[in-house]
Amino acid sequence: MPLSALSFVLASKKSEITCLQQLLEMGRLVGAVSQLIHVLQRERGTANIFLCSHGELWAEQLSERALQVQLAERAVDDRLQTLDLSGQSMTNAPRLFSRIAAVLHSLSTLPLLRRQIQAQEIGQPEAMRQFNDVIRTHLALIFEAADISGDPPISRALLAMFSFMQGKELAGQERATGAAGFAARRFDEAAQQQLLDLIEGQERCLQTFSEFADARCLALWQQQLNADSSEFERLRRIACTRATPADNGGDTALRWFEVTTARIDGMKGVEDLLEDVLMACCRQRIDDAQASLAMQQQDIGEIPPHEPHYSALIPPQLSRSVLELVEQQSRQLQAMDTELAGLRATLAERKLVERAKGLLMQHHGMTEPQAHKILRDMAMNQNRKLSDVAEAMLAMSAVLGKKND
Amino acid sequence: MPLSALSFVLASKKSEITCLQQLLEMGRLVGAVSQLIHVLQRERGTANIFLCSHGELWAEQLSERALQVQLAERAVDDRLQTLDLSGQSMTNAPRLFSRIAAVLHSLSTLPLLRRQIQAQEIGQPEAMRQFNDVIRTHLALIFEAADISGDPPISRALLAMFSFMQGKELAGQERATGAAGFAARRFDEAAQQQLLDLIEGQERCLQTFSEFADARCLALWQQQLNADSSEFERLRRIACTRATPADNGGDTALRWFEVTTARIDGMKGVEDLLEDVLMACCRQRIDDAQASLAMQQQDIGEIPPHEPHYSALIPPQLSRSVLELVEQQSRQLQAMDTELAGLRATLAERKLVERAKGLLMQHHGMTEPQAHKILRDMAMNQNRKLSDVAEAMLAMSAVLGKKND
Repeated sequence: MPLSALSFVLASKKSEITCLQQLLEMGRLVGAVSQLIHVLQRERGTANIFLCSHGELWAEQLSERALQVQLAERAVDDRLQTLDLSGQSMTNAPRLFSRIAAVLHSLSTLPLLRRQIQAQEIGQPEAMRQFNDVIRTHLALIFEAADISGDPPISRALLAMFSFMQGKELAGQERATGAAGFAARRFDEAAQQQLLDLIEGQERCLQTFSEFADARCLALWQQQLNADSSEFERLRRIACTRATPADNGGDTALRWFEVTTARIDGMKGVEDLLEDVLMACCRQRIDDAQASLAMQQQDIGEIPPHEPHYSALIPPQLSRSVLELVEQQSRQLQAMDTELAGLRATLAERKLVERAKGLLMQHHGMTEPQAHKILRDMAMNQNRKLSDVAEAMLAMSAVLGKKND
Repeated sequence: MPLSALSFVLASKKSEITCLQQLLEMGRLVGAVSQLIHVLQRERGTANIFLCSHGELWAEQLSERALQVQLAERAVDDRLQTLDLSGQSMTNAPRLFSRIAAVLHSLSTLPLLRRQIQAQEIGQPEAMRQFNDVIRTHLALIFEAADISGDPPISRALLAMFSFMQGKELAGQERATGAAGFAARRFDEAAQQQLLDLIEGQERCLQTFSEFADARCLALWQQQLNADSSEFERLRRIACTRATPADNGGDTALRWFEVTTARIDGMKGVEDLLEDVLMACCRQRIDDAQASLAMQQQDIGEIPPHEPHYSALIPPQLSRSVLELVEQQSRQLQAMDTELAGLRATLAERKLVERAKGLLMQHHGMTEPQAHKILRDMAMNQNRKLSDVAEAMLAMSAVLGKKND
């Protein structure tokens, strides 16, 4: 018997529900990764203070930090265990799994790094670079997770969350860089420029966050901004302008770490709310889709049964009821698509820029803000969009890479 | 036990293979739909001649044409039976299934249309409009199928094929419009403008085709172009310029139908080659991915087994071998992504333009070329991209539509 239009109307709605459920699972993974990043950031800051004070400060905190990371790793692993690795089902699974592989590999490098830190066999810049790489790998996974959404409200929530997490990571790097400088009682010109770049980078990410976040998250973030201590801005100014800040036996380094940690913990609060909003949004969309499926099933129940047949004459009213169901669904999907097209373009552009920055960081040893600056300057000089410059750079490197193979 | 990076490297490759196999299935469906469109186009032309000659010409061909359509419907149905409708698995399943529902519904309207044509209870313009709608719905399915590809070479093959099918449909409309005019011995100004628009539209689609098609398909199409009879161009000129062409008892109408049918059959030949190239491309990509999976499995076999553990110290060489595998895969996927970003943008823009045209055709009773012209003129006047104008129009209609609900 040939298949009927109505069976595909239902199949379309059912697969929409499956996709939304996958997004909910992804939301849970994103939440666990966000927590893991948070404790990694703290471990990085602690390691910086330890290394720059030549082991005088916070030796005892190091293992506590490592333990927190291991606990967060376990929570991520619990989420990963629920994924189906057989190659079936998930949208964008190849890219997502490849990112997860990179995350797991990066985590496996931590025990060696920790041992080197503990033995002070590694310099602070190199230790920080390694932590940055690990966290960057985690953020790339979040970015890929954001790309699987076919639902505009969820895409917006994911974009807001990803941008905020990027901003928070730059705040974490600012904390780590400042902690290193205060503990070493020295900020050279490069470090000060780096701090300025990190501050500018945070503003850039938070700008994107505020474009896509919902009102509650924006309000909480505004509240955090208002609560920032004047001490934080004073220490920021000292770090950015004084080459040899006074430090009373490590006091300033610890105060800096405290106030920036308070700020970053506040950011984690916003991130947690973003996560709640994302999950609530997924659940709401699933409820909506299930209600819509039930309604479709009821509507279809009211249509007198008819055998779909290649040459059967279907009564016009019947044909119209079927048409209404088909068109309603098609209209709903198309309305989503128009909105998604814009969000996807935003995401695709950001992805190109992130990838080009990654290239500059990996092959030319730049920091994230430096790489961003290079791209931005090229874009301004050539009067082109940032993403166009990034794409041109990636295309060029692909050609050059092939030649060198 | 925590999951290892290597298990996700393999899972990524396996799901890549699954995606490619889905594309192969989709290629088969696209091929069956291409055949169905071809016989629908012929039935439309035959109905036009029958209706415009007031039942004098080709009454006996009508049922033969309908039978061919039913056979092609059955072949499409065979492909649909292989799909999993449970809501699991396929990428972009919600949109694809919704398009299939629309296709199946449109096919169910044909028996009534045929009865009205046979009884001459329907005018030629209305009959042609209904056939055009049915075919348009089929092309929209192909377009959606093109959007599921995450593989650049396959995306290119699908884009080339879709553009060519669009061009062929405009050639089919040209045949039907000309057949109606020659059979009625009359081309009014509107019909002549429509023919000119249809010729221009074909050139537009074939331009896109030539941007994405491979060399063999291009060569075959060039060969077809060279083989176009001068009689075809002579009849085209007559149709476009003479209000009352001579017609010797239906001879010119039949000659027109013959030469345009020869041309369209030639186009079907190119379309079949495009389909072959698409399928060969899918198979090649699957073979490549499977070879790559086997190689990964071999490489992983050479890495001494190690228990991934949160705090385990992994020897540096081992860590490097894992890193190489992780990075190699990530590089491959990223290289694809950069290329895909451009193709997806092209596809997204075309989708917006198609949807805006559909809106104009549905709600303002325009033909495809008229709708295209409106959009193009708006874009030129506002100095904006065609897709930007289309997006603005869709956004506006979404807002207006909500108000009217």
